[in-house]
Amino acid sequence: MKQPNIAIVGSGLVGSLLAIYLRKRKYTVTVFDRRPDIRKIQFSGRSINLAMSVRGWNALEKAGIRNAVENLGIPMDKRFIHVNNKKDYTQNYGKDGEAIYSISRGVLNRKMIDLAEQAGVIFKFEEKVWDVNLSEAKLYTGETEKGAWKEHKFDIIFGCDGAFSRVRHKMQRRSRFDYSQDFLDTGYKELSIPPGKDGKHVIDATSLHIWPRGKFMLIALPNLDGSFTCTLFMPHEGENSFSKLTSSKSVFEFWKKYFPDTLSIMPTLLDDFSNNPTSALVTTKCFPWTYWDKVALVGDSAHAIVPFYGQGMNAGFEDVFILDQIIEKFGDQNWQTIFEEYQISRKPNADAIAELSYRNFMEMSSKTAVPLFILQKKIEKKFSLAYPNLWIPLYSRVTFSNKPYADALQIGDIQETIMQDIMSIPDIESKWDSDIIMNKIKTRIEKLQTVN
Amino acid sequence: MKQPNIAIVGSGLVGSLLAIYLRKRKYTVTVFDRRPDIRKIQFSGRSINLAMSVRGWNALEKAGIRNAVENLGIPMDKRFIHVNNKKDYTQNYGKDGEAIYSISRGVLNRKMIDLAEQAGVIFKFEEKVWDVNLSEAKLYTGETEKGAWKEHKFDIIFGCDGAFSRVRHKMQRRSRFDYSQDFLDTGYKELSIPPGKDGKHVIDATSLHIWPRGKFMLIALPNLDGSFTCTLFMPHEGENSFSKLTSSKSVFEFWKKYFPDTLSIMPTLLDDFSNNPTSALVTTKCFPWTYWDKVALVGDSAHAIVPFYGQGMNAGFEDVFILDQIIEKFGDQNWQTIFEEYQISRKPNADAIAELSYRNFMEMSSKTAVPLFILQKKIEKKFSLAYPNLWIPLYSRVTFSNKPYADALQIGDIQETIMQDIMSIPDIESKWDSDIIMNKIKTRIEKLQTVN
Repeated sequence: MKQPNIAIVGSGLVGSLLAIYLRKRKYTVTVFDRRPDIRKIQFSGRSINLAMSVRGWNALEKAGIRNAVENLGIPMDKRFIHVNNKKDYTQNYGKDGEAIYSISRGVLNRKMIDLAEQAGVIFKFEEKVWDVNLSEAKLYTGETEKGAWKEHKFDIIFGCDGAFSRVRHKMQRRSRFDYSQDFLDTGYKELSIPPGKDGKHVIDATSLHIWPRGKFMLIALPNLDGSFTCTLFMPHEGENSFSKLTSSKSVFEFWKKYFPDTLSIMPTLLDDFSNNPTSALVTTKCFPWTYWDKVALVGDSAHAIVPFYGQGMNAGFEDVFILDQIIEKFGDQNWQTIFEEYQISRKPNADAIAELSYRNFMEMSSKTAVPLFILQKKIEKKFSLAYPNLWIPLYSRVTFSNKPYADALQIGDIQETIMQDIMSIPDIESKWDSDIIMNKIKTRIEKLQTVN
Repeated sequence: MKQPNIAIVGSGLVGSLLAIYLRKRKYTVTVFDRRPDIRKIQFSGRSINLAMSVRGWNALEKAGIRNAVENLGIPMDKRFIHVNNKKDYTQNYGKDGEAIYSISRGVLNRKMIDLAEQAGVIFKFEEKVWDVNLSEAKLYTGETEKGAWKEHKFDIIFGCDGAFSRVRHKMQRRSRFDYSQDFLDTGYKELSIPPGKDGKHVIDATSLHIWPRGKFMLIALPNLDGSFTCTLFMPHEGENSFSKLTSSKSVFEFWKKYFPDTLSIMPTLLDDFSNNPTSALVTTKCFPWTYWDKVALVGDSAHAIVPFYGQGMNAGFEDVFILDQIIEKFGDQNWQTIFEEYQISRKPNADAIAELSYRNFMEMSSKTAVPLFILQKKIEKKFSLAYPNLWIPLYSRVTFSNKPYADALQIGDIQETIMQDIMSIPDIESKWDSDIIMNKIKTRIEKLQTVN
């Protein structure tokens, strides 16, 4: 196999990026997608806005397309917390100059497909893949599942077809393939804050806005056109739930009670609420991710996660980045070894970011409104500024570094144990700023380092 | 809906039993199976022998078919443990008169289909169900997945089509359907001990035989024809694994080292080993188990478990028994309520027996060879005989009672904690038989009862 003939199923963000990477190696790359070309259709409005962070940028940079994408994003350097009936406040995400970037999935996807096409990738839109012959790397496409199919033979097939991947689905019917799909009780609905009359953002555009209300929350991310994409996360059933908000009247009453400050800036709320679907949130896990030297899953098809850490796309892009490193390491003749190394290297990190994302819903929706939690973040920040080598905050390790997610999870748990002890010190509110507290943390950390 | 028209997908043990129960209510019942009539084919030899225990008998009894089945089983009242190079010993499963019953899956299945047919159930063998319309309770059958299909309309469809259920598979593609399949690293292969020259069993036929070897084990269950069905459970990969036993020579050397006492009674070992497939073991979980008032999963399709507690069939039969109780309770007009109650009642118990079954591999393959574990069982037994109201051993609660599996798991964990403390008493080997020890256990239990 000199220059393999590659098929990618799925023209989403991960599929497009992988296509660009593989074209750089001069492979023939064909991307199949059952949907129409996203550049030629109106957006469905169902997608959560993305938050690009270091892992994402890093992967784009290596592909040589960071510059082309950069102007699509709006930097958000902080959380802007809207507490009901109390004073708003902000929490910086990282150090000065560190930010996550709000970016529209649709806009980014269009750009990435353009870039891939320019690089020589062949796109086949509205070609529906119905079946995969794993051991021979063959795809079968056709108008309908029961109609006539066309066979397409490749050397390697990549499944980049998302959480409900057809390629994975085929692997899943084999023996010894572990798989799980777990839906959250919490669903989401996309809403909007339109631009002001001057065409500009009506609330601060350098922040990710959160209205934390315990079991539910509203968030808003800025768009380039002056609007914000809002997402309401809320249980499907129960006291405050989508099942209870079935009339305009009930939505309005609910909004007036919990998000009164947004009523004046969300003029289309009631229409959006009834027109936009309520969607479900799922975590999927599987193993293995690959089949011989023939098939590999990349991105959501291998590890769909809930969106609360803003890492879904970043994790998928990092898959591509790492896979490329591994191709580099082993040379591009030995795909069985490449695939084995890829799945073993990525699986623990995918599991870790799944867990962190799941946990972060509680942090965003509840804890950000709790004074003691806010203080805890302040103390951590102070310590990490004073001793940057001893303490990288969990959020920064996930968002502003390329260190493995698995380490972030493990070290984050250790940090949390230490901070719980610190926060239980009597009168911590009055003495948190003292050297004694800083030294206590330092001693704990150094002790751990000696033990390990 | 006066007398619902019912379809059951799958003519296995659970499907046949459910058919009999529903026919007793005068419903029209049609059973579809993609395979040929098991009464007309030779057995595949791939099935682990079953161990019928109280839950299974109980469900057969209420269906009025216990007597018809009873003579197919061979009572096994104990484990017969073959320790390599040491003296064999036995462990009674329960009290005097309590036993589990070795029974061939194939023989039992044939009998159950006969009984169902006599009761007026319609069987459609070699009718392959390819698709299910959940909301309209329609099945689609045909020669091939891509060929012409015939539509069958029913009032209710039951999916009794096993661990890789097509009916569940259709439910799984819907949003908010949780599902997992987890394969064990341990697989299995079926082997045989034929009858002696006199046509009789060559080792004790009133026992379940175990050759525990740590990470692998051999078991043997008696058949009516004087033979034993043996199963080797062993990791797929690793030091002692199926992947290493690829030649007759390697199998023979392995056997001589670990199961030397069986060589003379397993004359077909080498042929069986190479002819019989190595199979995988899977735990599947899902929720919900039902769809509106139209579709319900029963048995393995809802909860496939590993075989180490001998409870797979018993749990499936208990599903049917409980479902029937619920139909009785709510009357047979309100199927939405019946299905809701059924899944809520059974799900925690299915999860519990899945966990207990998973854990029991360690007990069978390792602990049964450990003197301290054997002593622990002896102490528990003594205490439970002295205070039967205070202590039902875990195995008995699972096997010789109809109490919920979920309670067995929870109470079993409490008992284990107590016994761990008892076993850590210095010189427990010499003083276990004393009143002091019995009183210690009694005090612990009574204290717990006061707290709760």
